[in-house]
Amino acid sequence: MPLRAAGPSTDRAIAALKALLGARATDAAAVCDHHSHGESYHTPAPPDIVCFPATTEEVSAVLRISADWRVPVVAFGAGTSLEGHVNAIHGGISIDLREMHRIVRVSAEDLDATVEAGVTRLQLNKALASTGLHFPVDPGADATIGGMTATRASGTTAVRYGTMRENVLGLTVVMADGGVIHTGTRARKSAAGYDLTRLFVGSEGTLGVITDITLRLHPRPEAVSAATCAFESIEGAVETVIATIQLGIPVARIELLDEATIDSVNRYSKTSYPVAPALFFEFHSDSQRHVADQSEAVQALALERGGRGFAWATHLEDRERLWPARHTALYAALALRPGAQAWTTDVCVPISRLAECIVATKTDNAGAPFPICLVGHAGDGNFHLIYVLDPASRAELDEARRLNERMVMRALAMGGTCTGEHGVGIGKMAFLEAEHGAALDVMRTVKRALDPDNRMNPGKMV
Amino acid sequence: MPLRAAGPSTDRAIAALKALLGARATDAAAVCDHHSHGESYHTPAPPDIVCFPATTEEVSAVLRISADWRVPVVAFGAGTSLEGHVNAIHGGISIDLREMHRIVRVSAEDLDATVEAGVTRLQLNKALASTGLHFPVDPGADATIGGMTATRASGTTAVRYGTMRENVLGLTVVMADGGVIHTGTRARKSAAGYDLTRLFVGSEGTLGVITDITLRLHPRPEAVSAATCAFESIEGAVETVIATIQLGIPVARIELLDEATIDSVNRYSKTSYPVAPALFFEFHSDSQRHVADQSEAVQALALERGGRGFAWATHLEDRERLWPARHTALYAALALRPGAQAWTTDVCVPISRLAECIVATKTDNAGAPFPICLVGHAGDGNFHLIYVLDPASRAELDEARRLNERMVMRALAMGGTCTGEHGVGIGKMAFLEAEHGAALDVMRTVKRALDPDNRMNPGKMV
Repeated sequence: MPLRAAGPSTDRAIAALKALLGARATDAAAVCDHHSHGESYHTPAPPDIVCFPATTEEVSAVLRISADWRVPVVAFGAGTSLEGHVNAIHGGISIDLREMHRIVRVSAEDLDATVEAGVTRLQLNKALASTGLHFPVDPGADATIGGMTATRASGTTAVRYGTMRENVLGLTVVMADGGVIHTGTRARKSAAGYDLTRLFVGSEGTLGVITDITLRLHPRPEAVSAATCAFESIEGAVETVIATIQLGIPVARIELLDEATIDSVNRYSKTSYPVAPALFFEFHSDSQRHVADQSEAVQALALERGGRGFAWATHLEDRERLWPARHTALYAALALRPGAQAWTTDVCVPISRLAECIVATKTDNAGAPFPICLVGHAGDGNFHLIYVLDPASRAELDEARRLNERMVMRALAMGGTCTGEHGVGIGKMAFLEAEHGAALDVMRTVKRALDPDNRMNPGKMV
Repeated sequence: MPLRAAGPSTDRAIAALKALLGARATDAAAVCDHHSHGESYHTPAPPDIVCFPATTEEVSAVLRISADWRVPVVAFGAGTSLEGHVNAIHGGISIDLREMHRIVRVSAEDLDATVEAGVTRLQLNKALASTGLHFPVDPGADATIGGMTATRASGTTAVRYGTMRENVLGLTVVMADGGVIHTGTRARKSAAGYDLTRLFVGSEGTLGVITDITLRLHPRPEAVSAATCAFESIEGAVETVIATIQLGIPVARIELLDEATIDSVNRYSKTSYPVAPALFFEFHSDSQRHVADQSEAVQALALERGGRGFAWATHLEDRERLWPARHTALYAALALRPGAQAWTTDVCVPISRLAECIVATKTDNAGAPFPICLVGHAGDGNFHLIYVLDPASRAELDEARRLNERMVMRALAMGGTCTGEHGVGIGKMAFLEAEHGAALDVMRTVKRALDPDNRMNPGKMV
């Protein structure tokens, strides 16, 4: 177990950090409180000090102070984490990377870019506007690229463009002892040594602090179309997704929303989708005819499975209303119940089991004493629940815990994973043994080897 | 440094292995010689004994014997390695996995399969014939899936379908102490813990022995077309590749062959391609119209860059002649010079630097006293040289070493990697420091943590 940073050594670390960074190191209560939590139900836990380094060298200096005084370190990005990753449960130093917000390099010729960890995905896409390229990984929140890398984020477009796992080419990482390493290269593929890039992608700050990221970019599609389709039943919607994937139709987005989610979105975003299970689609291609071919094929599949016809969002402005409506699902769910807090969870299963998993989960959920919204990146076999809880109610929290555990264990029994994209943090730690068995010991061996003092985001993940 | 297995303990390990496996453990000289090398120029090094385990449990028992007597272990698949990975340079136990050749499970609904490590890629694709699916990763040789996983192999189709990195979902691995772990799940994505799957993919047997692999499969494309195009200059050919990738045209294969390679292929495969730099293309889609759109777009790019027009291989039998001709390039090169041996090397660079890298490399090569063939998975920025050497000539080996080093250092200076797909083995070890810097120490830390006795393929990679 990590040491709770003892008072005197923490005080010395704080003094050293203030000497290093001046006003960019602060133990003001309001700042520490802001860095005590993400967007989740987990109990906030403030750090002892928050640092705002501006360079990899400064992060390295912070890590050396952490090593000198054996004080824990937690990396912090946009604060949109859903599983308590950024809560400083053993106190110590929160490293806020938002001062590192430079886009270091864009190479349109090579379809790649290097950005600092604090750059957000919308900031990056704005900077790419004139290049004909985009960075499609899209977890909903305007997260930092550093946070997305550290949690192996994905989102609505992963079915076509992959997750952060597929889209990170290389990293700069500050190790526990303050050493700086560079992983990967700008080559598209390499067989030269262990894949450290992929080891750090998804490591949630427990092995090192990521300070810059080299990303793959993608050509903006020449042709795009989007549509929504309501279904008679959620099984029909999910079966449409399964058939689409099995046929290899390269949909760019295929998102599932249950009727509760549609209802909450309509209220929150002033939209008027039919209150029924729905799929939201997007098709991308280098060719208009190919987009038409894809959408015709998917429409036929939907109609055979209880789809009530496609409503097209052909104009850019219509599409630009559609996806924000989808992305506000979390806030729309919260608005269902004033004063409520969201417990958001996700699982991912092999696609053939998705309908069964969702139907059984919805049956479980039917008697819950709070609203539950279901949204899913269904093309990946991944779906989310939002439990809209009264945070003061122990009974509701216990019920959410029970429902979450039932869903996770069902997903694992189907060959799936306890989290498709939110990460482990605090919230999913209890399930790693069930998912990984003896492989969890190998993860712990790697952790001890790279962070022998257990200072890097201690008490999380492994 | 690894221990060279001392005589007495090796003798005891041999006795224990024979007691365990009977005739499936042999120290017959002919068998040990067969397991002393792959298909490369590196000095053969026989193991002390070769084992043919049939199950993961037997591999685990072999590893426990290796641990008891501190004897090295080298995993062996089809023996098609190009960088000396399988040479038993410190003696010990060669584990030949060809007895583990079962296709454990195919799930057409989920587009995945689990196979034992000794299954070859052609065997797998034959077994998939009735499913409408295929496993597209295609390194040329009929390698085992275990070997392809261990070397992070790719090949002609990686530009569209990715490498083994993108196509392995999970693994069973026997660790140095004989413990068995399962990495990954059958879910398409996961954010649950360190990505051990990717850590073992490309680890070349230095961290554990892979015994089964869960793979992504892909729908066989509804529409396929293939073509060749000769060019006035190799620059024109490479510039066509670069433009194709930059425009995001989803070619399935885009292979570069220089005039020396075309000449050797014509002689060996009785083909009659114009003796000029050439591109070999393949287009895949779910739609015939999309294949037509892609090929028209690429033809236009080629014509603008000195392409002399496309020769189409529209019928299946024509395509089935085209790609074997490409895949025999290594044997065709060897046939240029009876008694010669091939030194095969590869690098990979950002696509914008590919033309410059190839032209400079060919300028270097022009004065070489032996034939050199260039073939490339150009869409990935990856190309290969085959030095066709007199193995008895120290001068030729020295010249090959000098040329190889110049090419690798040029690729690294361009932001590339010392090997795109062949792996490190013995042949590229000297370049890892230049490529990875301090990250190499992190790789070594991981290696020591997971294989503290340095028994897993010692003397390789890190």
